Amino acid sequence: MGNSFGDRFRVTTYGESHGPAVGAVIDGCPAGVAIDMDFVQLQLGRRRFGAPRQEEDVVEWLSGLENGITLGTPLAFHIRNKDARPEDYAHLAHLFRPGHADYTYYMKYGHQPTGGGRASARETAVRVVAGAIARQLMPEVGINTEAEPTLSVTEENDTYGGIVKCRVTGVPAGIGEPIFGKLNAQLAAAMMSIPSAIGFEMGTGFAATRMKGSEYADKWNGLSPHPLTQTNHCGGIQGGISNGMPVEFRVAFHPVVSTPQPVECLHEDGHLQTVGIGGRHDRYHIDRAAVVVEAMTALCLINYML
Amino acid sequence: MGNSFGDRFRVTTYGESHGPAVGAVIDGCPAGVAIDMDFVQLQLGRRRFGAPRQEEDVVEWLSGLENGITLGTPLAFHIRNKDARPEDYAHLAHLFRPGHADYTYYMKYGHQPTGGGRASARETAVRVVAGAIARQLMPEVGINTEAEPTLSVTEENDTYGGIVKCRVTGVPAGIGEPIFGKLNAQLAAAMMSIPSAIGFEMGTGFAATRMKGSEYADKWNGLSPHPLTQTNHCGGIQGGISNGMPVEFRVAFHPVVSTPQPVECLHEDGHLQTVGIGGRHDRYHIDRAAVVVEAMTALCLINYML
Amino acid sequence: MGNSFGDRFRVTTYGESHGPAVGAVIDGCPAGVAIDMDFVQLQLGRRRFGAPRQEEDVVEWLSGLENGITLGTPLAFHIRNKDARPEDYAHLAHLFRPGHADYTYYMKYGHQPTGGGRASARETAVRVVAGAIARQLMPEVGINTEAEPTLSVTEENDTYGGIVKCRVTGVPAGIGEPIFGKLNAQLAAAMMSIPSAIGFEMGTGFAATRMKGSEYADKWNGLSPHPLTQTNHCGGIQGGISNGMPVEFRVAFHPVVSTPQPVECLHEDGHLQTVGIGGRHDRYHIDRAAVVVEAMTALCLINYML
Amino acid sequence: MGNSFGDRFRVTTYGESHGPAVGAVIDGCPAGVAIDMDFVQLQLGRRRFGAPRQEEDVVEWLSGLENGITLGTPLAFHIRNKDARPEDYAHLAHLFRPGHADYTYYMKYGHQPTGGGRASARETAVRVVAGAIARQLMPEVGINTEAEPTLSVTEENDTYGGIVKCRVTGVPAGIGEPIFGKLNAQLAAAMMSIPSAIGFEMGTGFAATRMKGSEYADKWNGLSPHPLTQTNHCGGIQGGISNGMPVEFRVAFHPVVSTPQPVECLHEDGHLQTVGIGGRHDRYHIDRAAVVVEAMTALCLINYML
Repeated sequence: MGNSFGDRFRVTTYGESHGPAVGAVIDGCPAGVAIDMDFVQLQLGRRRFGAPRQEEDVVEWLSGLENGITLGTPLAFHIRNKDARPEDYAHLAHLFRPGHADYTYYMKYGHQPTGGGRASARETAVRVVAGAIARQLMPEVGINTEAEPTLSVTEENDTYGGIVKCRVTGVPAGIGEPIFGKLNAQLAAAMMSIPSAIGFEMGTGFAATRMKGSEYADKWNGLSPHPLTQTNHCGGIQGGISNGMPVEFRVAFHPVVSTPQPVECLHEDGHLQTVGIGGRHDRYHIDRAAVVVEAMTALCLINYML
Repeated sequence: MGNSFGDRFRVTTYGESHGPAVGAVIDGCPAGVAIDMDFVQLQLGRRRFGAPRQEEDVVEWLSGLENGITLGTPLAFHIRNKDARPEDYAHLAHLFRPGHADYTYYMKYGHQPTGGGRASARETAVRVVAGAIARQLMPEVGINTEAEPTLSVTEENDTYGGIVKCRVTGVPAGIGEPIFGKLNAQLAAAMMSIPSAIGFEMGTGFAATRMKGSEYADKWNGLSPHPLTQTNHCGGIQGGISNGMPVEFRVAFHPVVSTPQPVECLHEDGHLQTVGIGGRHDRYHIDRAAVVVEAMTALCLINYML
Repeated sequence: MGNSFGDRFRVTTYGESHGPAVGAVIDGCPAGVAIDMDFVQLQLGRRRFGAPRQEEDVVEWLSGLENGITLGTPLAFHIRNKDARPEDYAHLAHLFRPGHADYTYYMKYGHQPTGGGRASARETAVRVVAGAIARQLMPEVGINTEAEPTLSVTEENDTYGGIVKCRVTGVPAGIGEPIFGKLNAQLAAAMMSIPSAIGFEMGTGFAATRMKGSEYADKWNGLSPHPLTQTNHCGGIQGGISNGMPVEFRVAFHPVVSTPQPVECLHEDGHLQTVGIGGRHDRYHIDRAAVVVEAMTALCLINYML
Repeated sequence: MGNSFGDRFRVTTYGESHGPAVGAVIDGCPAGVAIDMDFVQLQLGRRRFGAPRQEEDVVEWLSGLENGITLGTPLAFHIRNKDARPEDYAHLAHLFRPGHADYTYYMKYGHQPTGGGRASARETAVRVVAGAIARQLMPEVGINTEAEPTLSVTEENDTYGGIVKCRVTGVPAGIGEPIFGKLNAQLAAAMMSIPSAIGFEMGTGFAATRMKGSEYADKWNGLSPHPLTQTNHCGGIQGGISNGMPVEFRVAFHPVVSTPQPVECLHEDGHLQTVGIGGRHDRYHIDRAAVVVEAMTALCLINYML
């Protein structure tokens, strides 16, 4: 289980990194919407930028569209894995790479997927497509990210993480559900589901723990003119519900765990073995993560706004 | 919607802060389990410690138990709000306090709940009861928290936030579902649903963004003897699935937004009005939050472990 | 699990027949609706008519209402079982009555609930309350039943079943979801969840299997004046979606399985034992079932119409 | 919405009758199961028997399998619509055929799908594939149907309905969830979701309404030797939970609504127009329905038995 996101605009994804394709079914898309496929392809292109595998990422649509207009029935699409090279992973058979999901998948499923399987970042291509559809259903919402890779470090023989800041404008007040359906809670789940995500904070976030309450509580401007409050420490959400200010949050991504240097892997039989795992220095890791952050933000919001 | 948590051990909560009671129904509890009610009451007592309202917090059980043994049918309970004092809030009618959910609830529901309604921390008493039941279904799991309130600040006329560190032992490898059901994603949602939560991080968290990949990826110890890895930067979860190491995360809580000083509230008609909102300096804010963190951790895990 | 119905107006029920109370939580009720409690009590009274246990059936509300107006938060209520008499069932300990759920509950849960537990018709009181709330959210919908008990049989020393015909007016065209969310499929599930229900048919139902297609397919009248079609063999639903004609269906109820004569029960140790189980001739079995049919119809429709 | 079935073995289907393909994603299939694809193809072949459109029905698998063994990740597959002929339906543009879902889809979605779209029986091919997978996860369960088409009627210029009897052996006692998750309720929903289904009854069904309680309540045989009861009027389910007897039910199917004779269609502009709609006499309508009944039975049971 665990391959669906959302209840009103429900995306169910599938596909292994080195299988025939990755894809999804979207249930809940309204009828009669003209989809801009160039926008979808643009987002896919942004996600691929500098990607290790140069997939062409052509989206094939199987359902839910007629002449580019949604039918109200499920949207189904897939992207072929034209560049799947399971043989590149032959030397890693029976080995658990450090920091990867090899060991945990093995413990859960009794086997280890080739090339990361569902744990690979390849899977996020599908989310980007779904997110690009969702954004077209909310034209008034603006989702903007700023990638902050750790670029002070220029050592070529290693990998680095970073932070993605996201600012969402155009979310009206009143979006979110109390208690477990809080908008911030759902955003947190959405962001932490992205590969390599390791932290999430709304507004001022962890730094707010060092503030006094008299500083933290955002002071009113009065109802008009906007903005509503003088500061936005809470990130636009109070009690789990949007207040009409921009929704602002940050997502921390740990360094890529496939490093250029050889690493000690754990063999299924218990011994340690040093091998090269094919990682490489990649400046654009966080830029690509930002595209997925945008997509997941859209998938989160659309479930409240349909 | 949004008042249910979990799919296999589903808790549905109800109750306004100043209504007759708060309570919940738990669907999915196995039959034949003897419940230790002293443990439940102990957790409720920990949550109340220093609480502004001195509820007795007596749990009344209406369903699902016979002679203290679960029947397999829904567990239902409530806690009466014996100390509800809606009149304490009369001077706040039509006023939106800064930092509270007054305005957002008003925008969503068209009315403003007395004394915070569902947005009040009162609601968390119910989660503590449900979490105390869940923990008894997983006796091998240990959930320990450390509260780090911002106590360097001793100014009595203000409020402060802090951080709760949580360490969970006894979670076997293989717990979690790929993609959207990742254990870290569900933990994030669970924690961010707690009132005042404003940040979440697994393991090394935001600090990991400043590490090299060669440092970050936890090195193997070999399968035995335990521990599995030399460090635990990932917080015990890889690819959304537990690896058998302790599950470790931190939750940031912003300062209490009811401060002792008078504050400028926004009136429904748009003008600003300065009033006292009855906040007080409270050293135990974060200690109480820690009890709810423990409860939500249990509610999160039980859905994977049943 | 299995104690919730609906996704947009979700009712979660609890309570054993001979426990302290039966009750429910309703998540998804809109804010700002004035609830007519006399109507709720009227429906409860109709359900009790001739009931073996003379509960007063007073509904206590714990959440979601202020001055009789819904808050948008969960509605929670319970009805105390003032007349619970577990001692009446002492002679049935360890015995599985024929036709009852005693044996199946025992096989599922490892114990046998006193007096039927959740399998008792007592549980339907809660559905009647929830249905009475749902109906007030759809004032344009009329739900009418006709009870057809098998009253040609007047033998006082036995029990009988019957049929409930239901006719729903005011359902606009376009209600229902294709494939698994078909309105007729959800109605079928709703009706078959009622104790003693053993058959369900839409419109002409089983008799339609003996018709020619040229007779069965309802002929158009033209779009105006109404009715839309000359006949209503399909019961107002085509492809799982309402067509604006009355929604019509019938539900078959088997005879009450607690009969006045002594019966052979199966003892847990495997021997058969003849005992009296306290059944009685009751002319109003089907009339009461009709009230529950109405409630479940409302609970079914509201999930499409909110 | 409405395109998913099940919570533990969740099938989400997609595809229009005259679009590129029909397909599904199955979430919840365990890892390590060898799938017999010949069995899948056999069931697909049974469903096609005598089908108006001679699709080859080749299943393409995109996810969840490696060397024919399940990975534990989502199974995804589609079947191309090689024989789609939307032009066959050109003369029906803007016309609502009697008895079809043309009008209701139009009212719901604002457009009318070509050739029935999702309402076409073509969609059931996908369910047959999913059901054939589910059956392989329950080798001890036997699902057998008997088709009873109305073949006393031999008039070639019309269409007929019939009844499918289903008998399921090997279901252990204790399968089902009380109240809304009753096995009979879920079977009812599953069966009524099949195109043309118009009635459902468990065991003795509607005929039970004419029995006395003393006849209806199945008499015990004692725990051994089997069978458990002397008769099976209840169809193997009591209180929504299986008792270990065969699960028996019947599904009524109304006549095919595409008849050979020309019929009066309703035009979008309100006038009536007589056209031929291409129906034909087909003896095997009910035989094919029986294959879908078997598939849906498997999909229903697997959600309780995983």
